[in-house]
Amino acid sequence: MVAHVGPGMTDPERRGVAVLGSTGSIGTAALRVLDRQRSRFRVAALTAFNNADLLEEQVAQFSPSFVGIVKNGSRDAWRAGGQCLVEAATRDDVDVVLNAVVGAAGLEATLAALSRGKRVALANKETLVMAGGLVTEACRSGGGEIVPVDSEHSAILQCITGRPGVEIQRIIITASGGPFRQWSAEQLEQATLDDALRHPTWRMGRKITVDSATLANKALEVIEAHYLFNLPYDRIEVVVHPQSVVHSLVEFVDGSVLAQLGVPSMELPILYALTHPDRVPDSGVPRFDPVSLSPLTFEPLRTEQFPAFALGVAAGRRGGVAPAVFNASNEAAVALFLDGRIRFGDIGVAIANAIDALADLPGDTRDSILRADSAARRHVQEQFGC
Amino acid sequence: MVAHVGPGMTDPERRGVAVLGSTGSIGTAALRVLDRQRSRFRVAALTAFNNADLLEEQVAQFSPSFVGIVKNGSRDAWRAGGQCLVEAATRDDVDVVLNAVVGAAGLEATLAALSRGKRVALANKETLVMAGGLVTEACRSGGGEIVPVDSEHSAILQCITGRPGVEIQRIIITASGGPFRQWSAEQLEQATLDDALRHPTWRMGRKITVDSATLANKALEVIEAHYLFNLPYDRIEVVVHPQSVVHSLVEFVDGSVLAQLGVPSMELPILYALTHPDRVPDSGVPRFDPVSLSPLTFEPLRTEQFPAFALGVAAGRRGGVAPAVFNASNEAAVALFLDGRIRFGDIGVAIANAIDALADLPGDTRDSILRADSAARRHVQEQFGC
Repeated sequence: MVAHVGPGMTDPERRGVAVLGSTGSIGTAALRVLDRQRSRFRVAALTAFNNADLLEEQVAQFSPSFVGIVKNGSRDAWRAGGQCLVEAATRDDVDVVLNAVVGAAGLEATLAALSRGKRVALANKETLVMAGGLVTEACRSGGGEIVPVDSEHSAILQCITGRPGVEIQRIIITASGGPFRQWSAEQLEQATLDDALRHPTWRMGRKITVDSATLANKALEVIEAHYLFNLPYDRIEVVVHPQSVVHSLVEFVDGSVLAQLGVPSMELPILYALTHPDRVPDSGVPRFDPVSLSPLTFEPLRTEQFPAFALGVAAGRRGGVAPAVFNASNEAAVALFLDGRIRFGDIGVAIANAIDALADLPGDTRDSILRADSAARRHVQEQFGC
Repeated sequence: MVAHVGPGMTDPERRGVAVLGSTGSIGTAALRVLDRQRSRFRVAALTAFNNADLLEEQVAQFSPSFVGIVKNGSRDAWRAGGQCLVEAATRDDVDVVLNAVVGAAGLEATLAALSRGKRVALANKETLVMAGGLVTEACRSGGGEIVPVDSEHSAILQCITGRPGVEIQRIIITASGGPFRQWSAEQLEQATLDDALRHPTWRMGRKITVDSATLANKALEVIEAHYLFNLPYDRIEVVVHPQSVVHSLVEFVDGSVLAQLGVPSMELPILYALTHPDRVPDSGVPRFDPVSLSPLTFEPLRTEQFPAFALGVAAGRRGGVAPAVFNASNEAAVALFLDGRIRFGDIGVAIANAIDALADLPGDTRDSILRADSAARRHVQEQFGC
């Protein structure tokens, strides 16, 4: 049987999707989308970090031809260990790799998939932040393509699709502002882990939720946008938009602005990353009602209260290994914060110290980046005597 | 000298523009745009209704090869009389006809330009409302194209450019709500001409300003959108947005929404109608600042207080000569209101009576439409003994 295909989908067969990180927040949302879109896509491969029970349920539901688990709990016929990510990403029956691995662990799979000419639907923004030059070069030389899954970058892509880059004046990334948007400096000193995990508009994993509270997440997104859209940093801005309805905006050279809007749901950018530039009917997103979402407000970013943001953007501008040091020191510090071993305010301090010590390390090869990544993680551990 | 051309502009020569209605609100805005864009466009023809003094200034500034004036005040070398519109619109040195004539008088020039394969930048929405079938057929058979100048329709075009119609779920046209947005039915009974001309966000001509107060303008825009974008009426909605920053929205089949935003300025949609699908740098629109424009609010349309809106949309759905009767009776009633001869509330009554009496007239040929147009105008005059 030839599957029904939507407008503009030239391949009459269903496209194979590998979901890396299938048991996480993005992974499970992706599988809800793929379950509705079985006529257009098949789940060819699934990998998880260590949640074997949920992975087993997913395998029963989608019957992928490849299953991998990074740690513990392996089953018969599953590949175990970190190399399963690259194996899943490079299979012949995989057309699209949805990379929803958290953190630097997703890098090798992204590079391998792009080198094989595949589409990478990228939810793993750290990949681009730590190694943007390598990733874009792998994309160019391998004939692959990167389509963002982040709601902000998906919004920008939706606004510029079909138009040449020379028409873009600047992009404006929206930020919810996180749980501490209106907290004073004094209040922030007392912020607890529970406070940081209480995101006002998005339900996400713990690491990215803390990144939203420190605004490190927005710095990562600025760097990601720099590489995804080949834009200089002075054409990338951030504005606080507490309702998370306008997912980002693009100003064009004629002064016109396009924006993408929607209720906060990761299912929409996931689907768009699979079908871009086409759109297919989907019942996953509630009907848009501007009246019920009114009012939409915008505020300046309070950069002085959230040092991780400025540190991250400065690292992006600096280039070389600086973005990798920013990303790794942030990951390490957030892990300590999630373990209850450092305070909220220590995260920015840890990042600043690591960048001061390590951002001038030479080179931007894969090895130099991975060395800087490791050095930054150690540096954070040592700062707090861990 | 070969002029500098922007990205995607394949013609190395400057494109010739005819501005019909050059002394009106849209016409003068168009000439400000064309003055800044002299490297890409030349003013090939200008026509005005009766403002010979301003037309003479414009001729001195732009040196068009053709000048026409409909009434009074002709000069040597100017063509006089209503046929000058068609002459200007069909000249060989004209590539784009900016039709900013007010009302039904613009129809023949639109049809003639489209039949000659020209682009019509259409600010004269009545053309599409009264004779949408004829205009779209002239466009199809003549190889011309219609690009809207209305800010709302320009917004929709900018959101859907490059995408197939099958991906559009619905469009949401924004309405400022006009000066009477929050007036009660009792207050509306006392509304004066001065009240009606006090538009909150847009500076426009008197006729369209009254149409904004009655919301007849939004009905005209719904019908215009139906023909421009080939969408059924149940996929066209209107929402009140008092700030006039979001110029309209499009919901796609996957649930995603795109919107075009900007400070209220007609110069942006005029420029876009000239350059579509390309965009060129322009200094006419102030830099977009979402913080200063915040908050953006949305409200339901109060259809019961503004009968002209529902009458117009119903006429659009009815088809045949009904939209022409709606448009002509509205024009005639607004003219009487502007002359101080009827009250604000009489406009809706006049339209309703004309549609009751005339909307079942047969046929949708050019002659039948023009007959219905004349009959509707007479009907309104007779209702008020004028």
